[in-house]
Amino acid sequence: MLGIKIFIMPIRPIRIMELKELKLEDLNPDAFIEEQVEEIKSVVGSGLAINALSGGVDSSTVTLLGHRALGDRLKTCFIENGIMREGEPERIVSLFQAMGIPVEIVDAKQQFFDALKGLTDPEEKREAITQTFYKTVFGTLVKESGANYLLQGTNFTDVEETVAGVKRQHNILEQLGIDTQAAFGYTVIEPVIRLRKPAVRVVGQALGLPEELYSRPPFPGPALAARVIGEVTSARVDVVRKATAIVEAELQNTDAFQYLAILHEDKVTGMREGKRDYGMQVEVRCWESTDAQTGTPTRLPYETLERLADRITTEVPGVVSVTYNITKKPPSTIEAV
Amino acid sequence: MLGIKIFIMPIRPIRIMELKELKLEDLNPDAFIEEQVEEIKSVVGSGLAINALSGGVDSSTVTLLGHRALGDRLKTCFIENGIMREGEPERIVSLFQAMGIPVEIVDAKQQFFDALKGLTDPEEKREAITQTFYKTVFGTLVKESGANYLLQGTNFTDVEETVAGVKRQHNILEQLGIDTQAAFGYTVIEPVIRLRKPAVRVVGQALGLPEELYSRPPFPGPALAARVIGEVTSARVDVVRKATAIVEAELQNTDAFQYLAILHEDKVTGMREGKRDYGMQVEVRCWESTDAQTGTPTRLPYETLERLADRITTEVPGVVSVTYNITKKPPSTIEAV
Repeated sequence: MLGIKIFIMPIRPIRIMELKELKLEDLNPDAFIEEQVEEIKSVVGSGLAINALSGGVDSSTVTLLGHRALGDRLKTCFIENGIMREGEPERIVSLFQAMGIPVEIVDAKQQFFDALKGLTDPEEKREAITQTFYKTVFGTLVKESGANYLLQGTNFTDVEETVAGVKRQHNILEQLGIDTQAAFGYTVIEPVIRLRKPAVRVVGQALGLPEELYSRPPFPGPALAARVIGEVTSARVDVVRKATAIVEAELQNTDAFQYLAILHEDKVTGMREGKRDYGMQVEVRCWESTDAQTGTPTRLPYETLERLADRITTEVPGVVSVTYNITKKPPSTIEAV
Repeated sequence: MLGIKIFIMPIRPIRIMELKELKLEDLNPDAFIEEQVEEIKSVVGSGLAINALSGGVDSSTVTLLGHRALGDRLKTCFIENGIMREGEPERIVSLFQAMGIPVEIVDAKQQFFDALKGLTDPEEKREAITQTFYKTVFGTLVKESGANYLLQGTNFTDVEETVAGVKRQHNILEQLGIDTQAAFGYTVIEPVIRLRKPAVRVVGQALGLPEELYSRPPFPGPALAARVIGEVTSARVDVVRKATAIVEAELQNTDAFQYLAILHEDKVTGMREGKRDYGMQVEVRCWESTDAQTGTPTRLPYETLERLADRITTEVPGVVSVTYNITKKPPSTIEAV
């Protein structure tokens, strides 16, 4: 029932054409919130719902919408997949606790690294994470919880990119024609699906999300695994996690749309204490964009670039080289894999 | 006699400690030229010498010194190894022809690509090129020519880096304690071994080398193979050759010490005509340095970086992403492999 085939063979015709964007300039956040809360209430009725909170603005906003609509009848889980940023699970859970929303941390690190073992192809890695998330981990949680409604933070750009074939977001199911009720035993509710990220931020802010959550740069579904070229091991995720922490600390005061560190599989020659040292390379990307559809690299001051390179090569063991991406999207994409 | 073992086991004690740099400020180019011409004359006597011209400032300067000393008794070859820059063999040969120096082009492309097939480790690739050059190609040429003196453009930085273990230059033999007379049947003469690159340029200029040769940015011994991470095939060399031509055209008017394009083995996601396109990444490096011992990335204007990225992703098929290296040497090195 939860087999791979459902990801390959659409069961229903693709519905994307019916979906219309709700543009930022047309958005009345309070009216939108009221409408979505009513919609969730009416769909779930007296049932139980569940959602996975990643800490990104989309799933954070949906968590608040869901709790406003359902209170205790929404169970929110934070799945610790081992590919999160530094201190992420603790920080997100405590922020939601402060808002009176209990979040359960589910430790699934081992399941994810087992599934990723030996994989280097980006699509296979993405698929392994999707499968582990929906089937192994979340599938079990849903079953155990008895919930038959699943709230998800799918946004309009996710749908568009998936349908266009640019990238498969891990949270697109209905749009690919997958009948989740038949396949998984639950109905998916996607309250922010008509919004792009800037509009989701406005709704999150109106819902009382702390600024550090609603103004967060986007983070990919496969988390740090999307920032590792080649095999995703615990040790390699540690490298990109440290580099990511440095990039986020150094660039958080820029107005950039998104900034990220990527660990390359290619090794390059470096020098340590006068001797040849064959080591790792980290690529930094920092984007100017309004909707992630197109983007240009931020013209960061060279002082900032040099400090990034110094800190990453000094503080992250094994890294001897740092690059800055200078390509527009398109032909580049925001993320590397 | 020409086996691999000579590269592994030094036959004589390393001589580097005896070698003293002749610094740029202490260099009198005319006196130096006279001294080296006399030295070459006295060593070669009435014998025959041979040298391989790569077109770099070191081997170009040595070619002029050798011809001034020996005239027709120096045979100069240009070995077309398939890993040269665009139009390189024709351009170099015609520049020397204009100076009255005949250069023989030896087509050895197939031998080099055969030797490089399947190799991805940088040291193995370097070794394959060294062995193909000295043993398969140049060894045969030397033997056929009857020469027993070989002129080489080894400079002081090559020696230092080799002895320090940072990098093995392909033209270091004596310094590694290899007795070329015993091993190869010829004596190596290295007229510019006490000079670093800026001093070699001054000597080259004094010898009448055209500016486009004496002011050339340094180029590695293994040529474009040093600019390809992973397997070096004819198709992959074509990619980096095109990118190199763009980088050299765009950056030739900067005062940078060196600039280069590197083809990565890692592939990254890109977009073409709205669809996902998994493609190649090219890394650009541009260095401020006086002696190649240390270096900092040039603070190129963003207009230049963006033009480089636009041109490379537009003009080089299959490339979807371009980065700029922002790391100092050390811990980086000038080249990637």
